[in-house]
Amino acid sequence: MPLSHRGQIPAFVVMEVAKAAVELERAGRRVFHMEVGQPSTPAPATVRAAAARALEKDILGYTLATGVPKLRARIAEHYRQVHGIEISPERIVVTTGSSGGFLLAFLAAFDGRAKVAIAAPGYPCYRNILGALDVEVIAVPCGPETHYQLTPALIEEAARLHGGLDGVIVASPSNPTGSIIDAATMKALADYCRAANLTLISDEIYQGLQYGEAPVSAAALDENAIVLNSFSKYFSMTGWRIGWMVVPPDLLRGVERLAQNFFISAPTLSQLGAIAAFDATEELDGHLRRYRDNRDLVLAALPALGINQFAPPDGAFYVYADVSHLTDDSVRFCSDLLAATGVAVTPGVDFDRERGHRTVRISYATDTASVAEAMERMKAFCAETVG
Amino acid sequence: MPLSHRGQIPAFVVMEVAKAAVELERAGRRVFHMEVGQPSTPAPATVRAAAARALEKDILGYTLATGVPKLRARIAEHYRQVHGIEISPERIVVTTGSSGGFLLAFLAAFDGRAKVAIAAPGYPCYRNILGALDVEVIAVPCGPETHYQLTPALIEEAARLHGGLDGVIVASPSNPTGSIIDAATMKALADYCRAANLTLISDEIYQGLQYGEAPVSAAALDENAIVLNSFSKYFSMTGWRIGWMVVPPDLLRGVERLAQNFFISAPTLSQLGAIAAFDATEELDGHLRRYRDNRDLVLAALPALGINQFAPPDGAFYVYADVSHLTDDSVRFCSDLLAATGVAVTPGVDFDRERGHRTVRISYATDTASVAEAMERMKAFCAETVG
Repeated sequence: MPLSHRGQIPAFVVMEVAKAAVELERAGRRVFHMEVGQPSTPAPATVRAAAARALEKDILGYTLATGVPKLRARIAEHYRQVHGIEISPERIVVTTGSSGGFLLAFLAAFDGRAKVAIAAPGYPCYRNILGALDVEVIAVPCGPETHYQLTPALIEEAARLHGGLDGVIVASPSNPTGSIIDAATMKALADYCRAANLTLISDEIYQGLQYGEAPVSAAALDENAIVLNSFSKYFSMTGWRIGWMVVPPDLLRGVERLAQNFFISAPTLSQLGAIAAFDATEELDGHLRRYRDNRDLVLAALPALGINQFAPPDGAFYVYADVSHLTDDSVRFCSDLLAATGVAVTPGVDFDRERGHRTVRISYATDTASVAEAMERMKAFCAETVG
Repeated sequence: MPLSHRGQIPAFVVMEVAKAAVELERAGRRVFHMEVGQPSTPAPATVRAAAARALEKDILGYTLATGVPKLRARIAEHYRQVHGIEISPERIVVTTGSSGGFLLAFLAAFDGRAKVAIAAPGYPCYRNILGALDVEVIAVPCGPETHYQLTPALIEEAARLHGGLDGVIVASPSNPTGSIIDAATMKALADYCRAANLTLISDEIYQGLQYGEAPVSAAALDENAIVLNSFSKYFSMTGWRIGWMVVPPDLLRGVERLAQNFFISAPTLSQLGAIAAFDATEELDGHLRRYRDNRDLVLAALPALGINQFAPPDGAFYVYADVSHLTDDSVRFCSDLLAATGVAVTPGVDFDRERGHRTVRISYATDTASVAEAMERMKAFCAETVG
């Protein structure tokens, strides 16, 4: 049987790098995991305790497709506490990671041949999932002049060039850049999308991980924005595959039906554990302090790597850096770096097909000692490469 | 924002019934859950112990997109033990429930506008997921003369009527009927699909739950068949959202890339727990004995309900029954039954849009005492309905 055309989507390259890194580790080599965007810490103690209790006393069957009511209510409470806004628990839909949320959002918002603008560099799975769903993706090059983010002007220009648009995806903080959309720009984006009748999808899975001003949620600006969030990053629960959406009232029933059919429900133990994630602020803010230390280490090392152009690392746990003085083939560069030093970083092509052959994403989510050692090894490798 | 056309798929009705049942329970009523197809038992003790250990000592980060190697190897070993066939662990892809497997299979095998034949009655999410992916679904009415299953002759006729087909989905044991495709018919189906160049997708998630001859796996017949399986049913792990596929060699890379982008990876704790599910045969065969007892109870009660036409309940934990002497509106019937007696069963329209208004699916996966009490209440209700 031949593979379908829609099945011929690109790999999520970071997962390919991770695979090579794991193989190297299995062969006995020490590997520094600066590739995958995930904490090196387990879920908070409160979550693990709640999960252990649920394991003992709960049947762990399916839940309602939109999630356990207590978790939905707790997430709504989170918006009250962190953003000072009222969101009805009815508008919260628990998802199987933000990956599950993306699929539901894209299916509910876009038919085949719809046109959706994303920032380049940006999260590759937006493009790859949308492509497999026959949605046309308009990757808009973004650079330092717009903080590596979309703006109303860029969206308007993209709409003009491509004969109209149906939707826009923004991410704040962004993967791979870590840049944050400031409050005024987010408001301008929401206003623009509303006026132009575009579906605004706001990926907020890195919120909570910021090193200056906190990002605003699109949920605070427009009830028609689809907001995606996750317990993977700030809450340190990647492998639990649990996230949530804030859904516009008009899409609620549609998203619920899609969730019933495509997922049945999100993992039950993860849902029950996630309720307790909101009680772990002290532990999680400890992680945040470590990320800040790691970030300082990476930024301090960049000059010695000859790197002087990189996106503003406002949040998340990434530095997205220009390595054009070292290579014009970032895939090869990352592969050589891994083989020579055991340091795994992700080539920019995953995030920006046009310009990513000259960039890499360095994730500093691991432990501080590993970050320090990895940067030393990268320094030596880069010195040799420049020769 | 308007809902997309593809978002306008039907509800998975059983989840709607479950929602109504939960609401009734919250209002203090006793409810008999004969609606959702899930065991009333938790995961086996071996799984819960393995999960408790992993909770303590594992970071529970992402895994490789295709799953933990040890689980893939253990599943391959399962095919050796149960079916006497050699499947390379490379061809096993761990999925987020069989729901995740369906999405990967459908995307890898079919482009938009492909035509896929399914049996009616059949699992509604096939139709609903395929529809949302812009695949054309041909629901082929199946009845007692073919054991409620597709045959080469029915497929050939459907292909003729619809100007060709691209694929076929079969399920053995089937949901909602419980009927099993015998070995000779499964071989004929595989041979037919191979000769006609149709992708054969075989849903085997109810395997292990059979009351007579064991069903054959399509994996034993053709390496080009896509086989879907799950830990939800026989292994009693619904809420863990963990399943697997056996993938044709030509589709492997495509399925892996789709899994990377759409899921990143299946829930890690569920993967680690699932490895231990294969060590729980004694506990699980105890469940199977209980299902057999429950099945006997339901079958014995049918005459008193006036039901004398139902699909052969060879496996799974369902009886799919004709209730045309009671109603020609099964949704209303189920709703009235729930309100009057607290017994939740699923209207046939979920499984067969054309003919399901005169059928219901009774799930007997719950405990034996509840099944007995539920059948008594149904008897009283039906006696009153017939008047």
